[in-house]
Amino acid sequence: MSKKITPRSQDYSLWYNDIVQHADLAENSGVRGCMVIKPYGYAIWEKMQAELDKKFKQTGHVNAYFPLFIPKSYFSKEADHVDGFAKECAVVTHYRLKNSEDGKGIVVDEAAKLEEELIVRPTSETIIWDTYRKWIQSYRDLPLLVNQWANVVRWEMRTRLFLRTAEFLWQEGHTAHATKEEALEETDKIINLYSDFAQDFMAMPVVIGAKSENERFAGALETYTIEALMQDGKALQAGTSHFLGQNFAKAFDVKFATKEGTQEYVWATSWGVSTRLMGALVMTHSDDKGLVLPPKLAPHQVVIVPIYRNNEQLEKIKEIVLEIKSSLEHRNISVKFDDRDTHKPGWKFAEYELKGVPVRLAIGMRDVENGTVEVARRDTLEKETLKVENIDVKVENLLHKIQKNLFDKANDFREENTFKADSYEEFKELIEKGGFVYAHWDGTSETEEIIKNDTKATIRCIPETSEINEGKCILSGKKSKQRVLFAKAY
Amino acid sequence: MSKKITPRSQDYSLWYNDIVQHADLAENSGVRGCMVIKPYGYAIWEKMQAELDKKFKQTGHVNAYFPLFIPKSYFSKEADHVDGFAKECAVVTHYRLKNSEDGKGIVVDEAAKLEEELIVRPTSETIIWDTYRKWIQSYRDLPLLVNQWANVVRWEMRTRLFLRTAEFLWQEGHTAHATKEEALEETDKIINLYSDFAQDFMAMPVVIGAKSENERFAGALETYTIEALMQDGKALQAGTSHFLGQNFAKAFDVKFATKEGTQEYVWATSWGVSTRLMGALVMTHSDDKGLVLPPKLAPHQVVIVPIYRNNEQLEKIKEIVLEIKSSLEHRNISVKFDDRDTHKPGWKFAEYELKGVPVRLAIGMRDVENGTVEVARRDTLEKETLKVENIDVKVENLLHKIQKNLFDKANDFREENTFKADSYEEFKELIEKGGFVYAHWDGTSETEEIIKNDTKATIRCIPETSEINEGKCILSGKKSKQRVLFAKAY
Repeated sequence: MSKKITPRSQDYSLWYNDIVQHADLAENSGVRGCMVIKPYGYAIWEKMQAELDKKFKQTGHVNAYFPLFIPKSYFSKEADHVDGFAKECAVVTHYRLKNSEDGKGIVVDEAAKLEEELIVRPTSETIIWDTYRKWIQSYRDLPLLVNQWANVVRWEMRTRLFLRTAEFLWQEGHTAHATKEEALEETDKIINLYSDFAQDFMAMPVVIGAKSENERFAGALETYTIEALMQDGKALQAGTSHFLGQNFAKAFDVKFATKEGTQEYVWATSWGVSTRLMGALVMTHSDDKGLVLPPKLAPHQVVIVPIYRNNEQLEKIKEIVLEIKSSLEHRNISVKFDDRDTHKPGWKFAEYELKGVPVRLAIGMRDVENGTVEVARRDTLEKETLKVENIDVKVENLLHKIQKNLFDKANDFREENTFKADSYEEFKELIEKGGFVYAHWDGTSETEEIIKNDTKATIRCIPETSEINEGKCILSGKKSKQRVLFAKAY
Repeated sequence: MSKKITPRSQDYSLWYNDIVQHADLAENSGVRGCMVIKPYGYAIWEKMQAELDKKFKQTGHVNAYFPLFIPKSYFSKEADHVDGFAKECAVVTHYRLKNSEDGKGIVVDEAAKLEEELIVRPTSETIIWDTYRKWIQSYRDLPLLVNQWANVVRWEMRTRLFLRTAEFLWQEGHTAHATKEEALEETDKIINLYSDFAQDFMAMPVVIGAKSENERFAGALETYTIEALMQDGKALQAGTSHFLGQNFAKAFDVKFATKEGTQEYVWATSWGVSTRLMGALVMTHSDDKGLVLPPKLAPHQVVIVPIYRNNEQLEKIKEIVLEIKSSLEHRNISVKFDDRDTHKPGWKFAEYELKGVPVRLAIGMRDVENGTVEVARRDTLEKETLKVENIDVKVENLLHKIQKNLFDKANDFREENTFKADSYEEFKELIEKGGFVYAHWDGTSETEEIIKNDTKATIRCIPETSEINEGKCILSGKKSKQRVLFAKAY
């Protein structure tokens, strides 16, 4: 099986698929639109999960688990939500199979039809707020800060590994508050938590902002987003945090007794990131040689490849390798020592480049004699020969440097591809080229629609800003309070 | 809402439900047979997951994720498996809903009928082995040691929180090996890993053994189990490890090239434990005051309750509490300091007893003056007043003692309720009383069936033993090589 990666310049979309598959991140399954997340890909996802989970817990959230299935009628209770979510979804109608009469297989048992169909959750607001009614009676029960790690299903017609799949993994936070202010504060806290995670861990710069009304979550009063720029000039929505107002509390009749003894509806937020982040990670850093991983998310931060002709040489090299490995592990650096004799060093070099291992150490007999080791960086592909002394400190520093360099590189790319448009002509040209385009907008859905139909660009967000920066809408010429971020998007 | 626990002696089943619900472990949802795992229950499950996951990784396993849905036809490929699993399950038949014509809700869109129905996974052998065909070509790809943390659905008609629910959470290991011996070794390694986990972490003694043919996993050549004894004298199957032979490899055509260049079918195992362990945990240790948790699984190992009349007193107590808390946390002991002024100390004492917190510290003004603290154990309900000096060491030792005591207590209970029967009359009497009954069995399914129909007792396992211990079957009088373990079971 050839593991050749199609160059980005040739076919960006194929490049992406090649990396996801050849770097062993994920593959399509026998079930339409559902992916298999392979062990190497899953190990990266586990690192994302661990860090996010830690951040959630540090900010007072707890995990829980709610049912996979949601009765159909629950969706109808919140008017906007039903339009947004209860359409393309997996519907369970029966609960039994039986042997077919011709004895050649199994068929659905028509006698086992459910009275009410069950929807495989596309998101869990409805089942969770149906539960919160029982959990919340008094102000003492608030705030309720719950997160769930789960699989969800949205029946997408056109799917792409990680970016858009029928089933995906995610976390969904669902919080309940006594006041509007607290709920807004939570919404804000979480979008900043996501931004910190994206930037510090994934080395992926993001823009924080609010969604326009058109692009809001179905049932939300306000949706905040983090938007990242991919290498093909398209935006990717990497995480969202929703202020739901009292919509779900009213739909599911969730009230609480205030300190003063009155009954009030509860204020809500919900927020999530998903395995889509894996796609964002791939498209932010990778190159034509394969995946590039920031050290903080790499399952193996360092790989060590011995270069030897015979067992005697291997034994000598191994002695040094095991010392290096243990000194690195002492610094919590994860190390893989690949001494398989079934593959040659050149093959291994290519393999670990493909898989994005941040640092490669190679040791041959000359290194043994000289007390040296060859150190290669995945991000810049630079190699140098270093003395073995204090190699642990040197590698640790290098990993920090790589983490920072990846962020800087992505940030430079974004700056080079971020533009301002002051006329509609200019806007269309820039959007055609790709990248982030900041432009004035009159705030109406009509204008947004026209621009979208003309150019395929959408408002990614209305960025948080304290500057006053008035202008005129590029399309209508009407007054605009600030520039908003446009781009074509995934 | 009263949180009174029904005593075991009055109604064991109600006692169990009361604890699960009042200790905030889980509750029923609006979806038939599906539970909500509440934050406190989920925190215990997370501790189980973390420890098991560590053990799996230490033994060379990696995690991955496979689709939730399985095409119906996959089940028909392994003859025994289809009979066992493709019956009571959730069937997805449609992928879209639409607004109803009367405008009053949403209905299934009949135009969006799937060509082939999808089954919500009851277990993942079929979809995984369909994938392994692509992953395994050569002996170099073996062994393949993969685990998955996932939700699964089995349409149970009679459900009980944790013990038997339509949806539950579990891990399922699926491994592929070059030889029969290696696969058998893996099966054995895992059942011992489960046993160690149950005994060392859950403080729950178990018997390891093989299932009789009748009780084997559908598609397995051999099933190993760990069986625990609950307080009502019933057995609970707490984990299983299956040797699948080449059944799934043959059904899904998974062959590998050997070193010698021949093509062979791959050997398989699968194994799992589920949220059912939560039920086992509750029924092994709890008492009429509520949940009792072994320290290794307690979300809060220590709770500190201040006893004060006014804020001035609280401030003085707090000074000492914060020192104690930090010294305990330095020893990786998890501590909750409950200084809420909305509840009285007596209420808090009852609440943390109900929730099974292993150690409670109470500090009042007299303690502040005397440099003491009241220490209460949940397991024995004993209290003593200790000097504050070295309280961290004292509490750490106490937690070890409690962990050990819980195991010993459960083990004593099991020994008191384990019997040998040498005649069928004696057997029936003992089974009626409840407990584990070791008896000779002739090895036939017919005898097993008759005994089951007569007494509701099943063969829990054929215990691992090196002793030769021949005898005569209690029912047929035929020769028997060893005693097997009978019990009524969950």
